[in-house]
Amino acid sequence: MTIHSVKGFRVAGAHGGLKPDNKPDIALITSDLPCRAAGVFTTNRIKAAPVLYDQSVLSDPSAGIRAIVANAGNANACTGEQGMTNTRLTAEHAAGRLGCRPDEVLVLSTGVIGVQLPMEAVIKGIDAAAEVLDAEAWEGANRAIMTTDTRPKMAGIINEEGYTITGIAKGAGMIAPNMATMLAIIATDADVPRAVLTDALQAAVKKSFNRIVVDGDMSTNDTVLLLANGASGVTIAEGDAQFQMAIEQVCTLLAQSIVRDGEGATRFVTIEVAGAPTTAQAEAVAQSIARSPLCKTAFYGSDPNWGRILCAAGYSGIDIQPDRLSLWLLDPDYSLSYHLVEGGRPRDYDEAAAITLMKQPEWVFRLDLGMGQEAAKVWTCDFSYEYVTINGHYRT
Amino acid sequence: MTIHSVKGFRVAGAHGGLKPDNKPDIALITSDLPCRAAGVFTTNRIKAAPVLYDQSVLSDPSAGIRAIVANAGNANACTGEQGMTNTRLTAEHAAGRLGCRPDEVLVLSTGVIGVQLPMEAVIKGIDAAAEVLDAEAWEGANRAIMTTDTRPKMAGIINEEGYTITGIAKGAGMIAPNMATMLAIIATDADVPRAVLTDALQAAVKKSFNRIVVDGDMSTNDTVLLLANGASGVTIAEGDAQFQMAIEQVCTLLAQSIVRDGEGATRFVTIEVAGAPTTAQAEAVAQSIARSPLCKTAFYGSDPNWGRILCAAGYSGIDIQPDRLSLWLLDPDYSLSYHLVEGGRPRDYDEAAAITLMKQPEWVFRLDLGMGQEAAKVWTCDFSYEYVTINGHYRT
Repeated sequence: MTIHSVKGFRVAGAHGGLKPDNKPDIALITSDLPCRAAGVFTTNRIKAAPVLYDQSVLSDPSAGIRAIVANAGNANACTGEQGMTNTRLTAEHAAGRLGCRPDEVLVLSTGVIGVQLPMEAVIKGIDAAAEVLDAEAWEGANRAIMTTDTRPKMAGIINEEGYTITGIAKGAGMIAPNMATMLAIIATDADVPRAVLTDALQAAVKKSFNRIVVDGDMSTNDTVLLLANGASGVTIAEGDAQFQMAIEQVCTLLAQSIVRDGEGATRFVTIEVAGAPTTAQAEAVAQSIARSPLCKTAFYGSDPNWGRILCAAGYSGIDIQPDRLSLWLLDPDYSLSYHLVEGGRPRDYDEAAAITLMKQPEWVFRLDLGMGQEAAKVWTCDFSYEYVTINGHYRT
Repeated sequence: MTIHSVKGFRVAGAHGGLKPDNKPDIALITSDLPCRAAGVFTTNRIKAAPVLYDQSVLSDPSAGIRAIVANAGNANACTGEQGMTNTRLTAEHAAGRLGCRPDEVLVLSTGVIGVQLPMEAVIKGIDAAAEVLDAEAWEGANRAIMTTDTRPKMAGIINEEGYTITGIAKGAGMIAPNMATMLAIIATDADVPRAVLTDALQAAVKKSFNRIVVDGDMSTNDTVLLLANGASGVTIAEGDAQFQMAIEQVCTLLAQSIVRDGEGATRFVTIEVAGAPTTAQAEAVAQSIARSPLCKTAFYGSDPNWGRILCAAGYSGIDIQPDRLSLWLLDPDYSLSYHLVEGGRPRDYDEAAAITLMKQPEWVFRLDLGMGQEAAKVWTCDFSYEYVTINGHYRT
């Protein structure tokens, strides 16, 4: 994927000392113009210090953001008062270095929890990143927030009206030694009123980051930030469907790349539930299947185990009608299709061919509830030996 | 554990042909006197034929049960009308063989789904079992309902007032190639009014079978049946706390033995949540921890990963106060204790000693929410390589 620079934004990744081996661990995203900003944050009751700090900054409706500092290697969660102080010091140092106010700086952290931020390393990293800010350095910034990620996660769109949207993300399930985090930063040079920005991000996150499952755990640090600095001169009006779709597409691509790079993942599986009375019901059934450890181990084993899928649908909490269920296994472009279940009962499908398809890295299960017109997709991965290794054997 | 015969009950396990290698696959539980009976069934929307059949039989308040037929090797789920017919034929054949009415016979099934019951094998098994009914044969009956279980699961109590309670169970998480089931049959020779029996079973199941987690999936066949034939001559009055406790104890021992024998389980872990405003809130937090794949893989790796436990508590849906949390790791009899977290932050505990304790097969995490007086325990196991093997690589 080609990644596009965004007018007025300069970014960088640098090494401060939170990761070993001179790896980049501090990302700096800066804008020449103050940005309108929207954020979506973890709903975990235990929130890391930077989450609480950013929520406080963004609670001011006139907030104008000039920079984001993101560090990997330390989540600054379960760190009490000292943790909050360190987040504030991080923002203050970046503000001083960049010549803006501390309340124009947002902070993100990911890594181990329960350990105080090594502020010397953070400051060293900010100083180093500030020296190398560049409009083209999005991949470098992305690499600086990677933890167990095996590759950067980027997506971008150049809109024909003349604005650009570029996003970077990290994730991979929660990670050893404690837990990590899904972080995403999306920047656009469109001029977007704050309310439009907030609505667009919330709607997009609902259909993208909230529809992916790696292990079903939810971190204390999960954050998606969207910045708009207006440098393109293109103004987005309320109800601009194209802008909404573009934000949703960038979020969806980033979210999917998190699942593809899930800890130990060897399969990328789309669960599509159709024929539901409402989208929410379709999503609930899809989420139940996508989270089932039994389904996820069957995905790993290339086992077209329709019984487990029906069963997980059955305990989703939605009043499905067992004798109306139809289930298909399809390849990603829907050109191959095996109809496994009809009227709640198994059909005489070609099991060997279905297994062969499931040995591919990507495929789709489509479940039709036969109860309505609404549908939803959720993306998930398999549970593999590698997942157990990564998460069971890090510290001991 | 010594298992006690129960006055008036004769039982057997026999081979009919649903399992290979001459293994027992049909259990017969019979009572000389008609029994009052209570049942608790899966809440999965997809219910196996025998679940629907038993619910219908027990919907008659005057139901008097003379026998239970239980088969392994076939779940009779997703089998449509033919499946219901086969369950009725099973009950009719057993009734004819035992000299009672079909509506005095309950049926249980566990094994593969989507395949019709091989009725010849079922009939052959019933006939063989009927020949060898014996008051002492509870273990034989138990072995006949085993699927991926590695050992029988029995529990019993002789009450000083002169009645006996004996229970057998099978489980082990849901199983390959499709899914299996938690089944439990509990028999007592006490004379118990139907309403008392139902209340006792429902209360006991809530605190036992509903508080165990192997993989969090819920089968189409889960059933717990409690039969009381009155043969001891001891009558249980409404509000008999001792009877209630005895049923709860038998259910708890059976439920714990299912977790200990969970698919691929190498650790038996008690999650105790205290200091909650209500028992339901304590249980919700404990269930969230007990189901977290990240916590379960950390248990496998003997990793005292307090961060994952706090995090799972944080997304339980309960409004916990992060800065009031205290967490301990304890051995099963609470004689060893490591205080890992206080006020939501890590303490300076002896990590090497904690790891050593977690290398043992059984231990306890105790989380105090600091918000009230109520507590709840949930029992869970770890996620191991063996879990992935058993569930990922059966058919392919």
